[in-house]
Amino acid sequence: MSRIRSQSLRSKLMSAQDAAALIPAGSTVGMSGFTGSGYPKAVPSALAARIEAAHAAGDAFRLNLWTGASTGPELDGALAKADGIERRLPYNSDPIAREKINSGQMDYLDMHLSQLAPMVWQGVLGPLDTAVVEVSAINADGSLVPSSSIGNNKTWLDRAERVILEVNAWQNPALEGMHDIYYGTALPPNRVPIPLTRPDQLIGQPTLRCDPAKIVAIVETEAPDRNLPFAAPDANARAIAGHLIEFLKHEVHVGRLPTALLPLQSGVGNVANAVLAGLMDSPFERMAAYTEVIQDGMLDLLDAGKLTVASATAFSLSPEAAADMNSRMEQFRGKIILRPQEISNHPELIRRLGCIAMNGLIEADIYGNVNSTQVMGSRIQNGIGGSGDFSRNAFISCFVTPSTAKGGAISAIVPMASHVDHITQDVQVIVTEQGLADLRGLSPKQRAKLIIAHCAHPRYRDALNDYYDRALKGSYGLQSPHLLNEALSWHQRYIDTGSMLPT
Amino acid sequence: MSRIRSQSLRSKLMSAQDAAALIPAGSTVGMSGFTGSGYPKAVPSALAARIEAAHAAGDAFRLNLWTGASTGPELDGALAKADGIERRLPYNSDPIAREKINSGQMDYLDMHLSQLAPMVWQGVLGPLDTAVVEVSAINADGSLVPSSSIGNNKTWLDRAERVILEVNAWQNPALEGMHDIYYGTALPPNRVPIPLTRPDQLIGQPTLRCDPAKIVAIVETEAPDRNLPFAAPDANARAIAGHLIEFLKHEVHVGRLPTALLPLQSGVGNVANAVLAGLMDSPFERMAAYTEVIQDGMLDLLDAGKLTVASATAFSLSPEAAADMNSRMEQFRGKIILRPQEISNHPELIRRLGCIAMNGLIEADIYGNVNSTQVMGSRIQNGIGGSGDFSRNAFISCFVTPSTAKGGAISAIVPMASHVDHITQDVQVIVTEQGLADLRGLSPKQRAKLIIAHCAHPRYRDALNDYYDRALKGSYGLQSPHLLNEALSWHQRYIDTGSMLPT
Repeated sequence: MSRIRSQSLRSKLMSAQDAAALIPAGSTVGMSGFTGSGYPKAVPSALAARIEAAHAAGDAFRLNLWTGASTGPELDGALAKADGIERRLPYNSDPIAREKINSGQMDYLDMHLSQLAPMVWQGVLGPLDTAVVEVSAINADGSLVPSSSIGNNKTWLDRAERVILEVNAWQNPALEGMHDIYYGTALPPNRVPIPLTRPDQLIGQPTLRCDPAKIVAIVETEAPDRNLPFAAPDANARAIAGHLIEFLKHEVHVGRLPTALLPLQSGVGNVANAVLAGLMDSPFERMAAYTEVIQDGMLDLLDAGKLTVASATAFSLSPEAAADMNSRMEQFRGKIILRPQEISNHPELIRRLGCIAMNGLIEADIYGNVNSTQVMGSRIQNGIGGSGDFSRNAFISCFVTPSTAKGGAISAIVPMASHVDHITQDVQVIVTEQGLADLRGLSPKQRAKLIIAHCAHPRYRDALNDYYDRALKGSYGLQSPHLLNEALSWHQRYIDTGSMLPT
Repeated sequence: MSRIRSQSLRSKLMSAQDAAALIPAGSTVGMSGFTGSGYPKAVPSALAARIEAAHAAGDAFRLNLWTGASTGPELDGALAKADGIERRLPYNSDPIAREKINSGQMDYLDMHLSQLAPMVWQGVLGPLDTAVVEVSAINADGSLVPSSSIGNNKTWLDRAERVILEVNAWQNPALEGMHDIYYGTALPPNRVPIPLTRPDQLIGQPTLRCDPAKIVAIVETEAPDRNLPFAAPDANARAIAGHLIEFLKHEVHVGRLPTALLPLQSGVGNVANAVLAGLMDSPFERMAAYTEVIQDGMLDLLDAGKLTVASATAFSLSPEAAADMNSRMEQFRGKIILRPQEISNHPELIRRLGCIAMNGLIEADIYGNVNSTQVMGSRIQNGIGGSGDFSRNAFISCFVTPSTAKGGAISAIVPMASHVDHITQDVQVIVTEQGLADLRGLSPKQRAKLIIAHCAHPRYRDALNDYYDRALKGSYGLQSPHLLNEALSWHQRYIDTGSMLPT
């Protein structure tokens, strides 16, 4: 049975090439996609080919590209390779695009993921010309069954002048009903409370709306999401997970957390997956996740009944987990809810629910300022993503990282962060394989002692203590002592010599 | 008529000295007070005298002091002078305390003002031994009529083991009914939406509750709040106000703001007052304020009907304005509402209402990272206060400052901020007397050009452009170009020579 159940809309069927031809040079395009899920699979590549042809003919052709977050190589990679992106927001993790940004060939605006949709409605980012959105199906009434991510799709469909839909037959039909699209947002002064008080609550509708008059093309695809394999957690990741779970047990023991904990938010990757794996053997029961992405470890926790519900805006699964979930999607109905990212990441909801936030970092300084985005203070890695949304509003805001990178040449704990994404007020717990520093209620100097002692790698600990001791004597003020001539010298040394280690 | 209308509580009347004697050394004391309003006037001084006597006798005597925000010299000044404060939070502007902090003699935890009450309930700051709270009156049923600030008083009264009340007959009896104490907060997982959707809405009750069994002392006072004179706005302040009001007019003109604007939040001081004065002559009508403090300029706007309501947690008036308001308090009933600071500063409400935030800064860097708290990266000025609560959640987040300080020896625009309180994502508009930079939707390099051209003082503009141009060539990455050897050199030069000006 066709996934395009609206007869009138079937007339808009065309090839990806024909659809891509409808996107003018210089325009702003809002595409679906959040991590490797739910991004359009065919039109971006056709568009990249068109851009390359234009460039070969000596014509300028670049676009402003908006998405939910990162996407797949067929989207960001292809368009960046074609030199087709003038300006990218709100998040990127594609290596080709990253290189273009860091060499000054592509403009990049790194945004709080909760804030893009409201800012588009506010009108400060300019008009949105075209939406290119992957869906699972088009209903007879024209409503759209979302795909494996929601991201900003509601906003793109509402705001774009014209809409191109990709209907991906690869997506599991059982996805239908796992989405909760909230249409109650507004601009002030007409905003009202968002009525969500539990992670398992449905406050919206299962489908996306779209004015059929705006739909200019529909492209059929049958292509998989980009599901990246997860490395099995290494010893460092398991050690970090162990420290964090001990800490959570302690918080339950002293009565500051319920035995079900509070809704978990977790970044993506090796360490996050190790934490989720560790929770399988933990004493916590009937937990919930209110987070950005559904990861491998969450499926196991749902299967085991340790996790009752996982609310997110996208899947971010390994190929094995994706295949497993696809084979028994029905079992996850009611346990997995995908929402628009302005809801999954909404400060109002994160604070109300009291999320336990667990995010990665690039470096933290001795006072606990966290750099999540810019290596050596200037080179973008990915972006702030939802880490600001969650860390400022969490009940407990944790940051996790191995204590060193690049085989020990980089210390994750530095005298002064070379770029700051999360200020000390929003960084409550730092965990490395060395240990955990519970910084809640501590002043800067108290934090410094704990971070150096518990989190820094032994190889860097003496140098950090030495900096701190000398800063205590030579600093302009003693609220957070610093020696400004030296504060960023570890980074400069890395740039110059390839290692932060004092020579 | 006595302000202590409860017969049973009258038995707790005693002198400030006797009340102060009930506070043990080493304990944690939560005092009322927010800016110069509503802080206890007698017990802190008596306590300071007791501490001085103890120190003279060779006995240790220090306290952990919690408040709403800053207080008056009879509180922070007296206790700091007596060397009686071991640890202070969440905000300080007292010069004696500041000096103790920056010389390492007093521990200071600088917090988001919205977060102190929830963190106390969460239990991570430890127990609260004694509350010392100024009220206007005690009703026959034991309920308490708040004073000229609310701050964290609800939380102190609820959480403290014992309570000392100061009943200040200087406070206007007509304050009764101008307060809105919301008792609907809870810890997760029991938090629910806060039902406020308009600045003029009452969601609580006019009085504070307190278990009478906890009240160990009542002290009668008749002493004024510390109302500091405001300097008339100087040319710089008027220029900043002019740029900001032009910007707001433009936003109304293009349809991004209603003609009533959106609820205003404004920091305290010269520039803020100039902006309020400028609004008197603006075309905006029926405005509202949802902010921390009621300032002089707001009374004029309320009188003129330009402002329909001002919601805050405290008054912060000049002596003249305080006298004027006291003489006709009844006229402001229903137009001024004082709320607990976890409500005046609540991220949920600030984002829902869509506040226009206007806060001061110490320095901004060329990318728009803002330092609000630490001079030369280490010396605390006051604290972050509510600026983080408002700037991250505002509909438009503006920062205002003269372009130089110390007679031109310090540039408010620097290559790299020596400390970061507000990240680029939360800094949307920067205004100096030189001009306004609307940074919304701009990437770091676009921001740098605008900030240098519109906001920097001409004396520093060439040096900033020179740094930026060289950073574009020599930076490790080009997302936000920096030369780490030089990024903080302006601050070091100021420390070494007394001026940031390149020699």
